[in-house]
Amino acid sequence: MSTHLVTGAAGFIGVNLVGCLLRRGHDVIMVDDLSSGSVGNIGTEIARSSHAHFVEASCGDPAAIVQATRRLGLPPIQDVWHLAANSDIPAGLNDPTIDIDRTFLTTSGVLLMLKQLGPARVHFASSSAVYGDHLDAAVMETTGPLEPISYYGAMKLASEALLRAAVESFIPQANILRFANIVGTPATHGVILDFVTRLRADPSELVVMGDGSQRKPYLHVSDLIDAMMFVADRAAGRFNVFNLGPPDDGITVAHIARIVADALAPEASLRFGLEARGWVGDVPRFRLATRKLMDLGWTPRLSSEQAVRLAVAEIIEQRSQG
Amino acid sequence: MSTHLVTGAAGFIGVNLVGCLLRRGHDVIMVDDLSSGSVGNIGTEIARSSHAHFVEASCGDPAAIVQATRRLGLPPIQDVWHLAANSDIPAGLNDPTIDIDRTFLTTSGVLLMLKQLGPARVHFASSSAVYGDHLDAAVMETTGPLEPISYYGAMKLASEALLRAAVESFIPQANILRFANIVGTPATHGVILDFVTRLRADPSELVVMGDGSQRKPYLHVSDLIDAMMFVADRAAGRFNVFNLGPPDDGITVAHIARIVADALAPEASLRFGLEARGWVGDVPRFRLATRKLMDLGWTPRLSSEQAVRLAVAEIIEQRSQG
Repeated sequence: MSTHLVTGAAGFIGVNLVGCLLRRGHDVIMVDDLSSGSVGNIGTEIARSSHAHFVEASCGDPAAIVQATRRLGLPPIQDVWHLAANSDIPAGLNDPTIDIDRTFLTTSGVLLMLKQLGPARVHFASSSAVYGDHLDAAVMETTGPLEPISYYGAMKLASEALLRAAVESFIPQANILRFANIVGTPATHGVILDFVTRLRADPSELVVMGDGSQRKPYLHVSDLIDAMMFVADRAAGRFNVFNLGPPDDGITVAHIARIVADALAPEASLRFGLEARGWVGDVPRFRLATRKLMDLGWTPRLSSEQAVRLAVAEIIEQRSQG
Repeated sequence: MSTHLVTGAAGFIGVNLVGCLLRRGHDVIMVDDLSSGSVGNIGTEIARSSHAHFVEASCGDPAAIVQATRRLGLPPIQDVWHLAANSDIPAGLNDPTIDIDRTFLTTSGVLLMLKQLGPARVHFASSSAVYGDHLDAAVMETTGPLEPISYYGAMKLASEALLRAAVESFIPQANILRFANIVGTPATHGVILDFVTRLRADPSELVVMGDGSQRKPYLHVSDLIDAMMFVADRAAGRFNVFNLGPPDDGITVAHIARIVADALAPEASLRFGLEARGWVGDVPRFRLATRKLMDLGWTPRLSSEQAVRLAVAEIIEQRSQG
């Protein structure tokens, strides 16, 4: 029963998180500039709630958020869930300004907002992309050096650093949540949606970027939200870093392609490229150590493969409705 | 005999670096917005050189630098030495915008400038502040996690991350140089100048922030410039991180205070505070592992204590001339 503010609230993870916070009885200020999130992602559960308050504003314009928040007259914000970011990694590969503006400057905007509204805990949607390419080693929260190979990962890391200093300066707690690949609905981007869309356009063939051997861990969004709540409820330190992923070695892109094809177009032939990585800035294989979170007492319901299978079914269903 | 661009060229380290580059026969484009650097720092050696080209512009305004650089008609820039940053750490403790604007956004400005002028190597003046507080452990370049406790350190780390991704994207090489405390002339800030200034105002007493036990490694600016050239000449990888400091455990603030007092006002009584750290955001003790640079074949002329003693003499002399 307190006030939470979610940035990027109209995005894929945002609407799932807001739903959970509402079910827990909180008031939720949903901030989104609708640049990549959309009102269409917001389901009836949220739309009908008198405890969900939508503010169309960019985190880069903290004054607008401050003004709108004050107008709501709610009790002071206790928790900020900072999800707003560029989610299109390839878009930023040749233009650093995209991730600087939409990932880093949204984080600094959140701090400037809190400077005016008063301190609150910040839970930050970071990414395994901060690690860079560590080949087959499972990366731990304490692993160094961190060498992101995309502006996306770099600006997630820059945001983490800013929040670390802000804990020293004025905010009571920051939880850095380094996400594995997250799948589920409403899907707005990502490999599964991409395969579904392309197989619908041409059911005879699916062309896969890279040689299909790229292997990554996947977490279903329902498990992700559960893990986020778990960390927020239990993490004791003022600055905490957690990998959020499944305790397995992931699943290959070839396997995902096969699952999607089996569900949508079993006759489709799969065509692979020759390169081990799908695109520049992509880490072809990575393993995320999740022991720290498991030691705190959390486990996901679904493995990488189960998460992908469920998400494929959900995404096919979502598109049928659309 | 090539073209170098130095940002923050009118600052303490900048003018020392530019002098060295000119002596090596290079053309040097000196970029500074004179917000903390000043024309007064630029000595006659530089002022009289036909190979030094001063551009008064902020790195936050890359278009201005691009325009001015093109007008010079020099061969393409081969090396950028990116020193422009906020150097007043305490000023940024309560206002994140200072280090965001003056340290992080200058780095992104350098990249945007190179997007237009063409790729060049970037040598970045980073800081041991990126490590945060590791107590008595000597921090290595691979040490993790990096948890800067000031916005200053956080925005140096954010800049490093951006450059790491830029190497993947378009620049040929980035050398990250994590400086120890640098001392020498023309001194513009720092503990020695502070003690000299205050002892001149009141030769009877010197009040020291903190209990004087703060211990840090110091490098004389002449050794720093030598190390920077050494790394630029020898580092082979596309992304290299080096601690630049002396191979010793540093010198305490109490010891520095005694050296300054002995030189200026031997009768002065020293008064210390009770806290182990001088100010919020200060790491009271740190040790910088310098093995990586030593293994490459470099050693400084001066130890921490020798660097401080030389700098004290130089700063007293500098002020007498002022």
